[in-house]
Amino acid sequence: MADTLAFERQPLYQQVSNLLMERIAAGVWKPGQLLPSEVDLARELTVSIGTLRKAFDKLESERLLIRRQGRGTFVNDCSSEEMLTLFRSLRDAEGRPLRDDVQPIEQRKGPATALERERLQLSAEDPVLRTRRLRCCAGRPLMYEEARLALSRFPAIDRSRVAGDYRIMALAQRCGMHLARASERVSLAEATGEVGELLGIEPGKALLRLDRVILTMHGEPVEWRIGLCNLKQEFYHADIR
Amino acid sequence: MADTLAFERQPLYQQVSNLLMERIAAGVWKPGQLLPSEVDLARELTVSIGTLRKAFDKLESERLLIRRQGRGTFVNDCSSEEMLTLFRSLRDAEGRPLRDDVQPIEQRKGPATALERERLQLSAEDPVLRTRRLRCCAGRPLMYEEARLALSRFPAIDRSRVAGDYRIMALAQRCGMHLARASERVSLAEATGEVGELLGIEPGKALLRLDRVILTMHGEPVEWRIGLCNLKQEFYHADIR
Repeated sequence: MADTLAFERQPLYQQVSNLLMERIAAGVWKPGQLLPSEVDLARELTVSIGTLRKAFDKLESERLLIRRQGRGTFVNDCSSEEMLTLFRSLRDAEGRPLRDDVQPIEQRKGPATALERERLQLSAEDPVLRTRRLRCCAGRPLMYEEARLALSRFPAIDRSRVAGDYRIMALAQRCGMHLARASERVSLAEATGEVGELLGIEPGKALLRLDRVILTMHGEPVEWRIGLCNLKQEFYHADIR
Repeated sequence: MADTLAFERQPLYQQVSNLLMERIAAGVWKPGQLLPSEVDLARELTVSIGTLRKAFDKLESERLLIRRQGRGTFVNDCSSEEMLTLFRSLRDAEGRPLRDDVQPIEQRKGPATALERERLQLSAEDPVLRTRRLRCCAGRPLMYEEARLALSRFPAIDRSRVAGDYRIMALAQRCGMHLARASERVSLAEATGEVGELLGIEPGKALLRLDRVILTMHGEPVEWRIGLCNLKQEFYHADIR
C-alpha cells in the first residue's frame, strides 16, 4: 500500500519517463530507432504533449534519447560519435580524442575473484571474461590493458564470440544495453618487466594507471578495466560538472 | 526582428529559467538564500506552477538551485559540502575526498601572458594573480600548485585581500559568483629540484600533473591551476557521465 502511494506521488512525467525507459531497456525500442511522433505517443499514453516532452527532456539529459532537428526523437546509439568521445578520455596534444587499434594478447574465462566481485558487484559463482590487450596509436603502443567483463550482465551474448579486440560500447549496443557512465581512478604506476616489454619501455618507467568501472543506465557495473599508459604528449581529460 | 522571434520560440520554462538565472547572477538572490514560495513566484511571473517547476528542474540540474524536502528551494551554496566534493578530485585509498591545508609560498600580480590569455580567455591587458602554494594532507606535502586567478572576472573583489591560501569556491561565493564546472588535463611529470624539495622527494620522481580550468555557470574561465601531486595510496577520481 505504501508502495502504491509512493508510486502515485511520483510526478506524471517521471512515470512516463520510467515507462519509456523500460521499453528501451527491454529492447522494444532499439538503439538508433526512431520513436513514434510526439502526438501519437502522447495519445497512446493518454498524457499531454507537455508531459511527454518533459519525460523526453529527462531521458535526453540521461543520453537515452536524442532529438534530431526536423527528423524526430531517436533511441540513443551507444556507438555514436558523441558517446564514444564521452568514454574516450585519452587525448592528443591538441585535445582530440585518441583513436586506437586494439591488439589482443590473451583471453580467459573464470569465476569472479573476491576483488572482481567487489568492483563488479558480482556473486561468487558469476563468470568473468578476462582480456589482456594492447592499445596502439599510430603504431605506438600507448596502453596495456587488463579488462574484466561481467558475463552475467550479458544474457543475450554468445560468449565464444566476444573477441579479444571487442569494443565495449559496440558490444553493449549489440546486446541492447545502454552504458551511461563510468567511474575512474587515475594514479601512478611503474612499468614491470612484462608491461615494459609490451609498451617498448624500460622497466621502472612511470605510467598513468587508469582503473575504470563502466556502468549501465541502471547503475550495474559491466566492465572493470585497468590500463597502464605510456604518455608522452597525450593526457587524460576529465570534465567536472 | 529575427532575434525577437528566436526568443519567443524558446519554451516558456526556458525563458523563466533564464530570468531566474539572471537574478542569481546579479546577486538579487544570494547563495544560500531561500526563494519565495512556488505559488508566489508563479503568480509574480504569471506562469503556471508546472512551468515554474520545470524551470526549477533545469536550474537544479545545473546546480544553481537546491530543493530541501519540506524547507523550500534555495540558491545553491558553492561552499556546500556537495559542491566542494565535486571539485575535490583527489581521494584517499578508501575513496574519500582529501581534506588539505594550504600553505602559501608566493603571490604576484601581473598582466596575463600569452598562455594565460589562451587558457583563461583574457585580453592582453587583463591582470592575473599568480599564487604558488603547497597543499598538505595530514602533515604530508601532497601537491605543489601554481594557480592563476583572472582578476577581471571578479569586479567585486578587493584584490589586496585575496590571500595566498584562498579557497576558490569560498572566494567565488563571497563575490556572488557560481562556479559550475571544470575541465582537467591529467598527465605525468617529473619533480624538478625546487618542487622535489617542497614535496620532500628526490628530483626526477614521477608526479601526477593536474592542469585545471574552473568555469562559471556562464562558461567563463576563472582560475587556471597546475598541480603536481606526489601520490602514494591516493588517486584522482573522475566521474564520466
